[in-house]
Amino acid sequence: MTKFADVLGSELTAQFLHDFASLSSYGATPNGGVDRQAATVADGQTRNWFRGLAEGYGFAVHYDQVGNQFATIELTPGAPYVAVGSHLDSQPKGGRFDGAYGVLAGLYAARAVTRAARRDGAPKFNVVVVNWFNEEGCRFKPSMMGSSVFTGKLTAEQVLATTDPQGVSVQEALAEIGTIGNYEIDVAAYLEIHIEQGRSLEDAGIQIGLVDSTWGANKYEFTVHGEQSHTGATVIADRQDALFAASAMIVAARDVADEFTDDNGMVITSCGEISVFPNSPVVVASEVKLLIDVRSTDPERLAQADKSLFERFAAIEQRSGCRIERGNEHIWGSQEYDRRGMEIARASAEALELSYMEVRTLAGHDSTNLKDMVPTIMMFVPSVEGITHNEAELTRDDDMIAGLRQLTEVLRRSVEGEFVTP
Amino acid sequence: MTKFADVLGSELTAQFLHDFASLSSYGATPNGGVDRQAATVADGQTRNWFRGLAEGYGFAVHYDQVGNQFATIELTPGAPYVAVGSHLDSQPKGGRFDGAYGVLAGLYAARAVTRAARRDGAPKFNVVVVNWFNEEGCRFKPSMMGSSVFTGKLTAEQVLATTDPQGVSVQEALAEIGTIGNYEIDVAAYLEIHIEQGRSLEDAGIQIGLVDSTWGANKYEFTVHGEQSHTGATVIADRQDALFAASAMIVAARDVADEFTDDNGMVITSCGEISVFPNSPVVVASEVKLLIDVRSTDPERLAQADKSLFERFAAIEQRSGCRIERGNEHIWGSQEYDRRGMEIARASAEALELSYMEVRTLAGHDSTNLKDMVPTIMMFVPSVEGITHNEAELTRDDDMIAGLRQLTEVLRRSVEGEFVTP
Repeated sequence: MTKFADVLGSELTAQFLHDFASLSSYGATPNGGVDRQAATVADGQTRNWFRGLAEGYGFAVHYDQVGNQFATIELTPGAPYVAVGSHLDSQPKGGRFDGAYGVLAGLYAARAVTRAARRDGAPKFNVVVVNWFNEEGCRFKPSMMGSSVFTGKLTAEQVLATTDPQGVSVQEALAEIGTIGNYEIDVAAYLEIHIEQGRSLEDAGIQIGLVDSTWGANKYEFTVHGEQSHTGATVIADRQDALFAASAMIVAARDVADEFTDDNGMVITSCGEISVFPNSPVVVASEVKLLIDVRSTDPERLAQADKSLFERFAAIEQRSGCRIERGNEHIWGSQEYDRRGMEIARASAEALELSYMEVRTLAGHDSTNLKDMVPTIMMFVPSVEGITHNEAELTRDDDMIAGLRQLTEVLRRSVEGEFVTP
Repeated sequence: MTKFADVLGSELTAQFLHDFASLSSYGATPNGGVDRQAATVADGQTRNWFRGLAEGYGFAVHYDQVGNQFATIELTPGAPYVAVGSHLDSQPKGGRFDGAYGVLAGLYAARAVTRAARRDGAPKFNVVVVNWFNEEGCRFKPSMMGSSVFTGKLTAEQVLATTDPQGVSVQEALAEIGTIGNYEIDVAAYLEIHIEQGRSLEDAGIQIGLVDSTWGANKYEFTVHGEQSHTGATVIADRQDALFAASAMIVAARDVADEFTDDNGMVITSCGEISVFPNSPVVVASEVKLLIDVRSTDPERLAQADKSLFERFAAIEQRSGCRIERGNEHIWGSQEYDRRGMEIARASAEALELSYMEVRTLAGHDSTNLKDMVPTIMMFVPSVEGITHNEAELTRDDDMIAGLRQLTEVLRRSVEGEFVTP
């Protein structure tokens, strides 16, 4: 068996860090982060830079109809493809590692495997490196848009017609930055490496996280109906204050997370977005819209937390005199990643003498979509202090290189047919 | 003594209701309210209608440099003026009575007193009916803008340079609707009648509220500083969630109101406006701005409530890991209205056989400013269910007419020299 270190070499690892610095200059913010929201000018520049870089390294670059970007390299003419990738878009003041690390690591793993193939002979699969369109879902909602179309969960028509708050459609925005096409490709397996965006690896001093499952998540949209009145004249007993009720819901969600988190498991609740009408300092709010999500690794714990949350909401309706209306909801059960993929990832880490542990992903990733279509392997590298969606997001060079070695070894085994058969 | 009913007469009361219906058609909303934010097109139409109406009834109409509108009538050449008024602007979806009732009642009281003067001889004062600019403070902040300039609490320069969220200045907006001038007038006393915007009169079955004092109010601006992170990846222990902390502050404010309200007194707390950054469903908020106010009739109770609130905020900082920064604050002590004015208002109600009680005003009014400059009388009529700043705001015709009778009698006594001396 060819040892990884031989394949990648110090020349490629140095180039990787150099290219990563170059990548981080696109949409760079003053505090060390990036702002590359999907299909903005900065995202377009990044995509064109990535195309040039991949072409320089011998890849052919294509776009599909929703702007997913594919860099292919043919090692064995006519063979099916193993895909490896992530996303280059970011949050408004995002970190430079989230997504971007996985795409560039994918390109370098493909380069290393290509070198090995030229030395050792044609493998059973070709490689495609993918930059999925709009994973973050800030400018255009929902998130994981490109991989959702690729896996048939959304249609291209739906996505292309989606507009940003200024009324610009995905179609127009992608045409504007010139990264749209009609490429089609079948993939046999998918690999992704990503920063953990949590601190479990760092806390444990572990280099590689093998993602064995996603968390279950219940996402709810609520509209709280109150009654508009004058803050300066309406006594508390006469108020139906929608902002008070919504605030009590947000506090209740946190209380539920604390109540159902113990040494045996965790519940996480979140609310990051709220809209208040009329949002005037002298008017008791008549309507508030908010999203609350509840996540857990354990389906039973999730169900209990959910029940507790809605009991608290009923009490809030009583106290506030407001009506809490439930809108759309998205319920995802906890889902496992491919068992054979887990074994290959474990064997790779052991061969490379990298420390590893199994982790669950709390966040959605493009691999969350891909795993429902093809056998998928998802891996994490540590995030310093778990900071993410933040300009201060950081993964250390050593950890990036360890992850790149791991991804390269997993890709090597995959193109040689250990993961799926052609 | 000329009895009021003789002065006003059934002809004027019928005309009053007719003119009030006409006034309510300006900026009318589908649900029976009005939208006449300061210096908008609808506010301009209302001001021009009011000018035409007052001129039709023999008044001369002028504007000062910040758009306060004055309708004067000279009963005794060279005599000083008693002012009577309120405001014609409204909240975005406001009621048709808030302010507007008082301006039109002022005009009709002035008409009735003019008729009496022509019959009974020249009184000691002339009358000016005032429509104060921008009492509501929605489009341009702060509220009570026009009366603040008139009473020297703000300068005209400050106010004219104030911009709305689109960057339009008060100067530009007033010029656009053509209701700006350079009129100057000294007033010797001020009278205002307004809907209660609370339910104490209705609950007690009383026709007239004699406002004896304002509530004390502490208004605070806060900025909550958290740390931006990924809702889908950051566990609760690692979050510094500014929206959670702000929500807990809003709930704490309500808890304080409940704790300090009993049979002997009341504390009212409010938050109607909140702004969240970045306000994304997948990002833990890094910054929230909010305004919280605390009011009470009783200074000691207000101080205790305030202390309790800040103790709770310190605990919220601990639990959330966020920092709560105090910005601007406005502290108003509870203030009394003129004692002699109270006596005149009481004597007027008794002479007219109207039921009355003393009330405090929780809300700010133009009279809150005027009372700091000249002897001022403030009166209320009932609001059905206390609903206000709402399209469903209602004061019944009978109550409007009773209030108009009361205002007319108080104005009659004032112009004859009972309130202040020339």
